[in-house]
Amino acid sequence: MKSNTISLEHGAGGEVMQALIGEIILKNFRNKSAGSIGLECLDDGSTVKLEDFNKGCELVLTTDSHVITPAFFPNTNIGRLAVAGTVNDLTVMGAKPLALTCAVIVPEGFPLKEFEEIIKTMDETAAEVGVPIITGDTKTVEKTALDSIILNTAGLGITDSPVRDSGLQPGDKILVTGTIGDHGISLMAHREGFDFDTDLASDSAPLWKLIEPLLKLRTPEGEPVITAMKDPTRGGLANALNEMASKSGAGILIEEDWIPFKPAVSAACEMLGLDPLEVANEGKAVMGVKAGFEEEVLSILRQHPYGRDAAVIGEVTPDKNEVVLRNRFGGMRFVDVPAGDPIPRVC
Amino acid sequence: MKSNTISLEHGAGGEVMQALIGEIILKNFRNKSAGSIGLECLDDGSTVKLEDFNKGCELVLTTDSHVITPAFFPNTNIGRLAVAGTVNDLTVMGAKPLALTCAVIVPEGFPLKEFEEIIKTMDETAAEVGVPIITGDTKTVEKTALDSIILNTAGLGITDSPVRDSGLQPGDKILVTGTIGDHGISLMAHREGFDFDTDLASDSAPLWKLIEPLLKLRTPEGEPVITAMKDPTRGGLANALNEMASKSGAGILIEEDWIPFKPAVSAACEMLGLDPLEVANEGKAVMGVKAGFEEEVLSILRQHPYGRDAAVIGEVTPDKNEVVLRNRFGGMRFVDVPAGDPIPRVC
Repeated sequence: MKSNTISLEHGAGGEVMQALIGEIILKNFRNKSAGSIGLECLDDGSTVKLEDFNKGCELVLTTDSHVITPAFFPNTNIGRLAVAGTVNDLTVMGAKPLALTCAVIVPEGFPLKEFEEIIKTMDETAAEVGVPIITGDTKTVEKTALDSIILNTAGLGITDSPVRDSGLQPGDKILVTGTIGDHGISLMAHREGFDFDTDLASDSAPLWKLIEPLLKLRTPEGEPVITAMKDPTRGGLANALNEMASKSGAGILIEEDWIPFKPAVSAACEMLGLDPLEVANEGKAVMGVKAGFEEEVLSILRQHPYGRDAAVIGEVTPDKNEVVLRNRFGGMRFVDVPAGDPIPRVC
Repeated sequence: MKSNTISLEHGAGGEVMQALIGEIILKNFRNKSAGSIGLECLDDGSTVKLEDFNKGCELVLTTDSHVITPAFFPNTNIGRLAVAGTVNDLTVMGAKPLALTCAVIVPEGFPLKEFEEIIKTMDETAAEVGVPIITGDTKTVEKTALDSIILNTAGLGITDSPVRDSGLQPGDKILVTGTIGDHGISLMAHREGFDFDTDLASDSAPLWKLIEPLLKLRTPEGEPVITAMKDPTRGGLANALNEMASKSGAGILIEEDWIPFKPAVSAACEMLGLDPLEVANEGKAVMGVKAGFEEEVLSILRQHPYGRDAAVIGEVTPDKNEVVLRNRFGGMRFVDVPAGDPIPRVC
């Protein structure tokens, strides 16, 4: 640790956050595991094995706090972000969402009407995937102590075959379920008062129904077709790909031209000098798919509204820990682990 | 709702919070249940029933955010409060803690040394009851946006016989596991710079090992000896007793002289004009016990360091929804549902 105090980068989803988690949290928590995937895996959630429970079935537990400002943004609000975020953490672990929690912290003076709007949005988002919100907590603080509402949602799911972020094998295809950078860039533009285009909106969405059919796919040898999956939120696709590559002991080669972007996101990134690969997504998954099955997976994904722009963006290579981007002229550059998301408080 | 905005009382654990939860949260969440105890029960946690799982076994899920200031207080810190609070929510539902989550929100500028101290304290508290912390989330915000660290812990537990807060039957004895008011009063005194006594310290403690042996007790007819249980945190004993009485459709008669208080807590309450019954406890349970079994329960509780001061404080009456306090001279007064905890941000 270079500094003696917390900085914004410590929570930005990149290298600095990883260091904090490794050097302080993982070092001091001695008891970190209740199943096959524990805290030390730093996956999107962890598993709990139950005695006397079905063959290989595990529960998945995950948690996320949302501190986004403003709480209302193009199309939706923090309530959708919280529910979708937790549903997606379960989803990318291959787990069917069973139940969510909802803990709110509200500063005094927060409008009750907005509070109710957020609660309604949580309900609607949860209803999309049929998951109940079964328990909660309500705290209030002085308006001088907190600038906006904070939500925490924890999620409980169940899976008979957890999907890890570390299962990539050389030759696997890398797929994303849709356009990249929408959430972070739309939020940035909204905050700064830019008016680019109507299609610049948060992509926040609960992905369980999109992903569920893929989890049953098997190769003729009985292997899962989806080899690894991750939620490219803070730190964006750049961070997700680097984590998947390094945990899998493999490399990834991405074709720049194959990455789906909304034109408004490309334009905004150019104008603001931001790399869309480092910006948070809130309704996308990135996955490894066994070679030869990518067309089948794409056709399933594209049948769902949240997967219409799904695309193969590259493949897994044997080059340990390298993520490389190739542009249309064949030029290559490394995609580094970002220090963190370039836009603070987007989730 | 009388006002258009959130006030501190909306999160203070009393009448105003109940109204907010009823009129906004319960009304708008349509899907609130995944087992025998759902959100609408407003118990300390809710249950999840698994298909194909053992006879009557249910999972219990609970969540709590902690916004206490200062984060360090006599004896311990917010880390102990968070872990103990979630362990206790599971415990009073009769559930063995299986796994915890840990989501932190830290303002920039927060000392890393204090952050590490909090993490270590979480680890130590979890180790007391052998529960792993398996997944987490780390967020940071600008120092102008938040005054101190916030923790959320969700907990997953398992039980073959959930204990509700609504199971009281006339004739049951009411027990508390120790002295009342310690947490709130010690925190208040610490904040205000009073120096009463060394025994004025937070009671924050994880109660699973204390309560576990009671859960197996059965009457000769096979009924659970513990009929109801609750964690008297925000709104204190007054709120917990009123909730238990009204949910059970019964009354409670408490003998003032039987309630255990630390002398320093009594003295501080007198001086500060506070009612210790309305003040938060963080290492106590209040329970209903089948008449005739109270001595057996007391002797079990008193064997554990957290139960040394356990006491019978009254009994359940048929007077619907009434909680009455009788003083040593026979004078009676109603114990009302407090508007909320009189001391803000104690948990």
